[in-house]
Amino acid sequence: VSVSRKACGARGASVIRAVLEATLDELARVGYTALTVENVAARAGVNKTTVYRRWPTRGELVEAALTAIAETAPLLQESGDVRLDLLAAARRMLAAMSSARGRGVLRMLLGGCAEPDLVALAFSIRKGFEAPARRMLERAALRGDLRSEIDPDLVLDAIGGWLIHTLFRERAAVAPERLAELVDLLLRGALVAAR
Amino acid sequence: VSVSRKACGARGASVIRAVLEATLDELARVGYTALTVENVAARAGVNKTTVYRRWPTRGELVEAALTAIAETAPLLQESGDVRLDLLAAARRMLAAMSSARGRGVLRMLLGGCAEPDLVALAFSIRKGFEAPARRMLERAALRGDLRSEIDPDLVLDAIGGWLIHTLFRERAAVAPERLAELVDLLLRGALVAAR
Repeated sequence: VSVSRKACGARGASVIRAVLEATLDELARVGYTALTVENVAARAGVNKTTVYRRWPTRGELVEAALTAIAETAPLLQESGDVRLDLLAAARRMLAAMSSARGRGVLRMLLGGCAEPDLVALAFSIRKGFEAPARRMLERAALRGDLRSEIDPDLVLDAIGGWLIHTLFRERAAVAPERLAELVDLLLRGALVAAR
Repeated sequence: VSVSRKACGARGASVIRAVLEATLDELARVGYTALTVENVAARAGVNKTTVYRRWPTRGELVEAALTAIAETAPLLQESGDVRLDLLAAARRMLAAMSSARGRGVLRMLLGGCAEPDLVALAFSIRKGFEAPARRMLERAALRGDLRSEIDPDLVLDAIGGWLIHTLFRERAAVAPERLAELVDLLLRGALVAAR
């Protein structure tokens, strides 16, 4: 029983992966409004009822596909050292943005090809993805490590923006030491003068 | 004589503007590799020899058109107060990115639709555009206002990246007070602890 369950689970997981990957491919091909469950099912090589059973609407299907990209990134491990923790959060953002499908969706958003519904969906998924890092920064502020007037979202947006600048505007690789330099700049600031 | 010269200059300027705008429109329509001086001239309603006389190659024409976007931004006025000066530099970047044609070119770059030659050209024009801000930060470091190990390019890239994040990923307007908050974060850092 345990063996057949395992096989069934593995088969289920590979169907899910195929459907979600087909969803992202269709999204890139036709956009959000024109995406149909039928075409996704055909591309994934599964029956459309298989798709409908799990994701009854296009919105749920696309949300699941976008969430799956974010889930390829490692969990955020918190050490209590704000510099190490912010660097880990930055690396996690980089991992989510760097996958082939993550890049595809980001290019769509940044190139202005994404419909407002998709932009809103991507925004809400990103906020969920960034929630552990936001809570980590809030805890650091409560410990007295961060200035209380600092908005964690601004810190995370500055990191995400710099990653987009590097990956999509300059089309360059992100050097680990440069990412550390950015985190250091955001934590320590550029000024010499005592605050 | 002076009146006719003025009229001639105004006519020349309007032809130049029409050709450069047509170049950006063609760039958005067909990309860099397929762009032809003939099509630009036709779109601008001028003779193609008028274009060739001033810009002998496609590369020079596209470079001039991209440079013209950057030139719509105000000059950088330097006060010697690094906070005011960095904020002015950030506003100047925002102005260059916010124009309709600036947005069009950036969407092309960020969406992955731009050929490598165009990416390289945009990179070199951006570096030229940012040169006054870079020199301003270098002077601030020489005065002892900024830590000597801070790379001015990282500071400018962090601002540019955050602007891209806001304008193109979130599709939001840039609130002046939020831009000031970002500049303050980059200068003072998020940490409470003395460095």
